[in-house]
Amino acid sequence: MPREIHDCVDEERLRNDIRTNAEYGAVPVDEGNCRTVLTGTEANRSAREYFVNRLEAAGLDVRVDAVGNIAGRWVPETADPTAPAVATGSHLDSVPRGGIFDGVLGVYGALEAIRALQSADVSLARPLDVVCFTEEEGSRFSDGVLGSSVASGQRTVEAALALEDDEGVTLDEALTDIGFRGTGRIDASDWDSWLELHVEQSERLEDAGAPVGIVTSITGTIRCLIEIAGEANHSGCTAMHDRRDALAAASEVVLDVERTTNEVVEEYGETVVGTVGKLDVAPNAINVVPGRVELGIDVRDVSYEPMELIVDRVRERLSALEDERGVVTTFERPYDIEPIGMSDRCTDALRAAASASSVDALELHSGAGHDTMHIAKVTDAGMLFAPSRDGVSHSPMEWTDWDSCAAVTQVMATALADLAAE
Amino acid sequence: MPREIHDCVDEERLRNDIRTNAEYGAVPVDEGNCRTVLTGTEANRSAREYFVNRLEAAGLDVRVDAVGNIAGRWVPETADPTAPAVATGSHLDSVPRGGIFDGVLGVYGALEAIRALQSADVSLARPLDVVCFTEEEGSRFSDGVLGSSVASGQRTVEAALALEDDEGVTLDEALTDIGFRGTGRIDASDWDSWLELHVEQSERLEDAGAPVGIVTSITGTIRCLIEIAGEANHSGCTAMHDRRDALAAASEVVLDVERTTNEVVEEYGETVVGTVGKLDVAPNAINVVPGRVELGIDVRDVSYEPMELIVDRVRERLSALEDERGVVTTFERPYDIEPIGMSDRCTDALRAAASASSVDALELHSGAGHDTMHIAKVTDAGMLFAPSRDGVSHSPMEWTDWDSCAAVTQVMATALADLAAE
Repeated sequence: MPREIHDCVDEERLRNDIRTNAEYGAVPVDEGNCRTVLTGTEANRSAREYFVNRLEAAGLDVRVDAVGNIAGRWVPETADPTAPAVATGSHLDSVPRGGIFDGVLGVYGALEAIRALQSADVSLARPLDVVCFTEEEGSRFSDGVLGSSVASGQRTVEAALALEDDEGVTLDEALTDIGFRGTGRIDASDWDSWLELHVEQSERLEDAGAPVGIVTSITGTIRCLIEIAGEANHSGCTAMHDRRDALAAASEVVLDVERTTNEVVEEYGETVVGTVGKLDVAPNAINVVPGRVELGIDVRDVSYEPMELIVDRVRERLSALEDERGVVTTFERPYDIEPIGMSDRCTDALRAAASASSVDALELHSGAGHDTMHIAKVTDAGMLFAPSRDGVSHSPMEWTDWDSCAAVTQVMATALADLAAE
Repeated sequence: MPREIHDCVDEERLRNDIRTNAEYGAVPVDEGNCRTVLTGTEANRSAREYFVNRLEAAGLDVRVDAVGNIAGRWVPETADPTAPAVATGSHLDSVPRGGIFDGVLGVYGALEAIRALQSADVSLARPLDVVCFTEEEGSRFSDGVLGSSVASGQRTVEAALALEDDEGVTLDEALTDIGFRGTGRIDASDWDSWLELHVEQSERLEDAGAPVGIVTSITGTIRCLIEIAGEANHSGCTAMHDRRDALAAASEVVLDVERTTNEVVEEYGETVVGTVGKLDVAPNAINVVPGRVELGIDVRDVSYEPMELIVDRVRERLSALEDERGVVTTFERPYDIEPIGMSDRCTDALRAAASASSVDALELHSGAGHDTMHIAKVTDAGMLFAPSRDGVSHSPMEWTDWDSCAAVTQVMATALADLAAE
């Protein structure tokens, strides 16, 4: 009797990999599961070494490129070894004090899907790659999605290797330290197609009771850094009309980002979000009128126009504040990634796979950035989401039930087989 | 020929004391003069030891009390040694990276005034005390004005000694370490009267071209600590209508403090000030909706009613924000000092002294808190200001010209002679 793909997904094997990976960089917590795995640390070395062992145990050929991206290749007997591969994976680094599923489910779900395909009665025409990208979270060397920016040609190997952490250690040095400074560049444009499995990090699947989410697009992100310079002064000796209070000006910006975004939501829909997540006051003393404030703004949507609109209005507001409050402002836009749609071919494969597994899939956009947003620029790409309990992520309380992990891996395996079929 | 008091003030001797004191805790800077002298540090020990030496060199009897307050007593030959003393002084501790005049001018100006009186042809009926209070700035153990709070009976010796710095070192231990944990309590209610000389820390004297300021009242200060708890969430995955953004709520508070204070200024005059000087965001990451914000508010005026009005409106606003934004707020009021007027007797003595020196004195309020605000609760008190260049203080750029220092010291000496005359 032929073995069906979904019967070959081994929930216990997958759980064992995720649980083992969770031990690297583990941080003791009262509740939940916590790990800190920054690029190029001992915890990262251990996580990478275990991953390589698991790839090799499954018979995959392992390659590590110059920026530490890892790919394990399986060439099915029925495949043309020279055909462009179908690739899948995610990342193993974490935010500080993160959870155990973010990225990890996508890496080990990918490997489990390949292992399932190896046991299933299925004919595949293409090689399959299981991939782990370096520094997706951006907690040490970059703003994030570092490895995929190199694999997609958005950033050169040299530029990536020269990035420094806060102590001046380069990515080159850190990867060399842990034995994962390989050679060459894993090139995503060589791939036939790409699928990434990830936890949702939001509550939409849970709210809809859907076990699987199919991502139709990933929001773009514009990040702006603003500095507002006023004049620091003694709070008791400076009359109200003599002040140039940088925090009062910054508070207007915070409320303006919120108000403008809400207005843009009215017109473009609730995928638009605008956030002032970071605000630092100097000198930040209770008895000193604030002299300087730095703000970080994050604007996202599935289309670029409303994002631009919000940023334009913020710039107008800064200009008005200079006149109204006598402050001096600076504006930078260091991070700017346009929204990107998933390819129909990949999305169709995921739909068909969900249908074959008889699971209801919710189609949704990803508000979070992922490596896939880079990869989608150079090859057909798709994304699959697993539910996150209470939508919590980047936290020890991040959780996805093991049977959910197995269910999405079944859908992933079926979709990979579809893409690799010819 | 009788020696006049103002001829006996020695500008060079005063400058030498202030310059020598500036070496203790000196911090190298490109411009200006910088020192960091926190209570109970080596720099503080050196500054105190030099002060004690200078008191003894002038023939004063030195006493150090349990909280490290230092007083040097001079009993003029013509005086009744049992009569309540006329006291004068200030503090030798500094803020981190402060200037060389704040507090110091008041201590060494007081000593120079006494030295001048010792040489002048003047008959005095009372002893005179030169005083240095512990921890006026509050940069290590307290909110400030610590030594005077004990001397005026606002705080017990035991409560003061038990105060801890950020590392858990008590004031008792720190003073013992530097050899300035004395015994007993210098009791300001024993004094006949008190005068403090201080730099203005504002530009009013400079703007008016006045060489001397006579303080008529010291503003009260209410400090409020507010915590606003919303919900930290992924900035990309949380729709605007699903947010409880603690920073947006806090920004409303910042602008409300400003707006309300401006309204109260309209009614009560420009002595009223309200400031949000401190604001801390958590987790303070550009891609996370802020989950918690702590704010510190500082409200001051020469009368208590408008201060209360501002604080009441802040509390109303917090309550409204809980309803409107679904945040949870907490409110504390850990610091509350009522405005206090200077005594007519002391102010008259200062006016007469300025007049005798033929200097134009500007009468003004102090927006900054000083040890005098505690002392004024238990005895007749007055304050004299010297001009601060550009109003700058708590900064290496703090500066008062040496001839100004001498001029205010002349006024101080004459006023002390007046108060001690009978």
